[in-house]
Amino acid sequence: SRTSVWLTIAHMVLFVNGFVCKDPKEVTAEDFFLAAKLDMPRDTKMSKVGSIVTLLNVMRIPGLNTLGISLARIDYAPLGENPPHTHPRASEILTVLEGTLYVGFVTSNPDNKLFWKVLNKGDVFVFPQGLIHFQFNPNPYKPAVAIAGLSSQNPGAITIANAVFGSKPPISDDVLAKAFQVEKKTVDWLQAQFWADNH
Amino acid sequence: SRTSVWLTIAHMVLFVNGFVCKDPKEVTAEDFFLAAKLDMPRDTKMSKVGSIVTLLNVMRIPGLNTLGISLARIDYAPLGENPPHTHPRASEILTVLEGTLYVGFVTSNPDNKLFWKVLNKGDVFVFPQGLIHFQFNPNPYKPAVAIAGLSSQNPGAITIANAVFGSKPPISDDVLAKAFQVEKKTVDWLQAQFWADNH
Amino acid sequence: SRTSVWLTIAHMVLFVNGFVCKDPKEVTAEDFFLAAKLDMPRDTKMSKVGSIVTLLNVMRIPGLNTLGISLARIDYAPLGENPPHTHPRASEILTVLEGTLYVGFVTSNPDNKLFWKVLNKGDVFVFPQGLIHFQFNPNPYKPAVAIAGLSSQNPGAITIANAVFGSKPPISDDVLAKAFQVEKKTVDWLQAQFWADNH
Amino acid sequence: SRTSVWLTIAHMVLFVNGFVCKDPKEVTAEDFFLAAKLDMPRDTKMSKVGSIVTLLNVMRIPGLNTLGISLARIDYAPLGENPPHTHPRASEILTVLEGTLYVGFVTSNPDNKLFWKVLNKGDVFVFPQGLIHFQFNPNPYKPAVAIAGLSSQNPGAITIANAVFGSKPPISDDVLAKAFQVEKKTVDWLQAQFWADNH
Amino acid sequence: SRTSVWLTIAHMVLFVNGFVCKDPKEVTAEDFFLAAKLDMPRDTKMSKVGSIVTLLNVMRIPGLNTLGISLARIDYAPLGENPPHTHPRASEILTVLEGTLYVGFVTSNPDNKLFWKVLNKGDVFVFPQGLIHFQFNPNPYKPAVAIAGLSSQNPGAITIANAVFGSKPPISDDVLAKAFQVEKKTVDWLQAQFWADNH
Amino acid sequence: SRTSVWLTIAHMVLFVNGFVCKDPKEVTAEDFFLAAKLDMPRDTKMSKVGSIVTLLNVMRIPGLNTLGISLARIDYAPLGENPPHTHPRASEILTVLEGTLYVGFVTSNPDNKLFWKVLNKGDVFVFPQGLIHFQFNPNPYKPAVAIAGLSSQNPGAITIANAVFGSKPPISDDVLAKAFQVEKKTVDWLQAQFWADNH
Repeated sequence: SRTSVWLTIAHMVLFVNGFVCKDPKEVTAEDFFLAAKLDMPRDTKMSKVGSIVTLLNVMRIPGLNTLGISLARIDYAPLGENPPHTHPRASEILTVLEGTLYVGFVTSNPDNKLFWKVLNKGDVFVFPQGLIHFQFNPNPYKPAVAIAGLSSQNPGAITIANAVFGSKPPISDDVLAKAFQVEKKTVDWLQAQFWADNH
Repeated sequence: SRTSVWLTIAHMVLFVNGFVCKDPKEVTAEDFFLAAKLDMPRDTKMSKVGSIVTLLNVMRIPGLNTLGISLARIDYAPLGENPPHTHPRASEILTVLEGTLYVGFVTSNPDNKLFWKVLNKGDVFVFPQGLIHFQFNPNPYKPAVAIAGLSSQNPGAITIANAVFGSKPPISDDVLAKAFQVEKKTVDWLQAQFWADNH
Repeated sequence: SRTSVWLTIAHMVLFVNGFVCKDPKEVTAEDFFLAAKLDMPRDTKMSKVGSIVTLLNVMRIPGLNTLGISLARIDYAPLGENPPHTHPRASEILTVLEGTLYVGFVTSNPDNKLFWKVLNKGDVFVFPQGLIHFQFNPNPYKPAVAIAGLSSQNPGAITIANAVFGSKPPISDDVLAKAFQVEKKTVDWLQAQFWADNH
Repeated sequence: SRTSVWLTIAHMVLFVNGFVCKDPKEVTAEDFFLAAKLDMPRDTKMSKVGSIVTLLNVMRIPGLNTLGISLARIDYAPLGENPPHTHPRASEILTVLEGTLYVGFVTSNPDNKLFWKVLNKGDVFVFPQGLIHFQFNPNPYKPAVAIAGLSSQNPGAITIANAVFGSKPPISDDVLAKAFQVEKKTVDWLQAQFWADNH
Repeated sequence: SRTSVWLTIAHMVLFVNGFVCKDPKEVTAEDFFLAAKLDMPRDTKMSKVGSIVTLLNVMRIPGLNTLGISLARIDYAPLGENPPHTHPRASEILTVLEGTLYVGFVTSNPDNKLFWKVLNKGDVFVFPQGLIHFQFNPNPYKPAVAIAGLSSQNPGAITIANAVFGSKPPISDDVLAKAFQVEKKTVDWLQAQFWADNH
Repeated sequence: SRTSVWLTIAHMVLFVNGFVCKDPKEVTAEDFFLAAKLDMPRDTKMSKVGSIVTLLNVMRIPGLNTLGISLARIDYAPLGENPPHTHPRASEILTVLEGTLYVGFVTSNPDNKLFWKVLNKGDVFVFPQGLIHFQFNPNPYKPAVAIAGLSSQNPGAITIANAVFGSKPPISDDVLAKAFQVEKKTVDWLQAQFWADNH
């Protein structure tokens, strides 16, 4: 199947067997199109963190291959969030379609400065490649919606808490206890939780 | 002024005097933010072609420098269009927020195939780098709105008709008459028109 | 066949089945060579616009793959031209071998400045990536010849008039009439012409 | 000073005022050299996590500018670790000079697979760009030492725990409590700790 | 002066003070033009190796900056040669305008295969980036001429014999004697010769 | 076999049939690991030039593909050397683990400046992409050891003397005699020697 040829680790997708090898005479407008229903709210109740990311990357639209761009819609429940995460291969530019978002990113060592803003409808914010960033809907009653462009056809996403505490197999609790300055039993408890990403 | 240091010809923006030379201790969240009012309809009556493009590139958001991404909102009047144009340094991924759009791009020589679709709200389409593309709102009563991500902090835009018939100074009518298979007086008439871009 | 694996839309050629997969022990000097007869005038009578482009790209010389370079010879009839066109993936540097050329490119929106020169034998001019450019032989009696280097193994070429008025299927005449400020019947007439590229 | 012109957020370093503008006649071997004492053990007692990273990037060796490479030595105390971190702009290849290391990286969503190994002296491991990775010295008595190459002259480093719980100003505890499935008072306690990076 | 800001060591030219900082309103067609007299034979009598390279790079044509392309004309005396050399930052595609050339490049370790051809007028050959290559005019009576495109605005050129035996200061004769399997006095004699490059 | 798909001429490795096409579910930590024994001295007696390079590139560690990094250990006999060579696709940063090294690189035409240093244990030096460079152990009694990072997963290496005098088939002695200012019989004698690279 097409999916089987993607190298999903951390590499740029340079080659897709099922697509690039396609006879170009057989490429059609369908390869550059998706009836993505990006206008439709997604049900954020399914998400523990109260958000759903709909990412349209090269796995969803084959024509994106080599083009260095993708698009996402993010739905936020009231008090929902897109928790701290990074894109290993992309920068992001986001605008708020509905609601309000408290957003930010943290600069790298040694400063670890938080650059943050409260965004209203129509505001725009930029998250540089590889930096930890988040969006949170502070409104307890109303949902929020954002649209974002990403500078890769396969940006990848790493939800920090999930990768750290929910990896399979788990990272040694010695490592995590020391890194997070907590006791090993706390790490063990965290690793026993259910970590689902919001994609 | 800051604007004066941008090299706007056709080069990637590699250097912005007013920004990159800034002491990084003085960089703040403001450099990554814009109160862009992307949620607000623009008045397409000002545009002969019935559309307005609001492009947020590195000239508008200095923090985009080197990040390879930008974002645009396009407003379309009823029967308005974003006329055939290219981005010399970017691919584009677009989604329809409101209304309907007839969109397409033309492949390069020798085939010049038109890949086209009618997009409804929530649909997504991709325009590969450097190819001539357009969007047209076929609805005579209702406006349309789209959001697009572009794979450069300075994509550039070349409105084909304007660059060909509206350049300053004009291209020789000998050249254009032969290229477009029309008489020189037709070219002269076209060159005498007013060509304004929709940005 | 080898041709069948090229992705000719707008992507960089990253992969050529018939070549990259070749056992490197079987690669020879022939893969880097072409008896191209670039010294021989081509018959420009075959061309409506009075020019013939001989482009040596990766489809012609497999060893160019990934090397980011190609070479072209252009023959111009008296009063012939290489009509307004763009290369979606390459900049170009050209020198005149024989004759005289009126050349130019147009900068992107909003300025659409025409940068032009009359080139004599031995002069050199640069056309930045993705910008609309042309060359015209103003001499009614003598042909002209140029050689050009291009910064991609697969630069692509889009003849503006052909892509706009000669696409298959045609672009809606609503779109083109508004873009070019002409009546739809003019567009229809143009679309009924024969558009052949000069490659 | 030279330091003041570095753009340390997340951008590639494209421009260094004090260096690139230097008259090339004044560039000497010193610009490509550092008496870095990479052979000398660093005192890991200073580090809460029991490790010290000595990173030789373009800020330390100006001649690295634009060259896409840097080098690091890492010292590990007995039971010390280089805690979970990412490099936003570089992949890494590491070899163990002394001792033993438990190392790993976690793939991106949705799998979050831990790829891990116990490395002995002379073994080599690769950490792909932007992925969360760590090294831990499981030996309670002996230190360990590693050398690593990184694919950028300015790789950047983000210590996950520090960026998440030690940013200045802190990230809202609403955001972190939900992301890490803990109570806000736990977040508050964590944010009150001292978070120093090991560089 | 403008020249003083080029970083000529081995880095890509990313920044040119006198040009990129120029107010774009002051950029003109002159920045993309050179009356290079590429049609005129150069006097190869000045050259010990019987060839003259006329390279049009970004130092000669400022508009080439960031465009990734340059152009060269090479004149060869009868029995003259462009001796073994490399371009550290460019691939090359060459065509013969006049005469005959014996050309070749050597693949990297461990094979060191020579890929060679005798080129006649109009033939084309490709030299991949960084590989040692040469052209030699085997005709004892007639000169030869070639034109070449290179995939960088600043390709650089390293004449092997000159860099090895003519560096300033000289490389230790211990190093060269062992590398070239000759006696130190042979190296000393070679280093005492005059090494001028043919650019 | 896997090896058969590598394009070893001078191209970046963009595609590896046996690896990239692998079902990503079958990728494991083993693809990012090598029990390389980089801590073990290699027997330099096998080498005419008194050095052995152990290069860990993408042919040795498949997970390096697309990551832009590799690592090398170099062993030097007393008075041994890594003779003048270039990496066509990588810059290098080197540190001395044991002993002393006289190192240098030569800048490109026209200056051919030698930038050199004597490195002691723990010192670091940078060799820019494509420039001729060397390391020599001046100590007649003690071996030396270095570790180097390289900015490509497939840097390539060209030993200058071997490529020039040991190519298969040999370069014409006319070409080499003129380039190196020696008699053809000297070239013939050199070409009759045995040229083995130290990798």
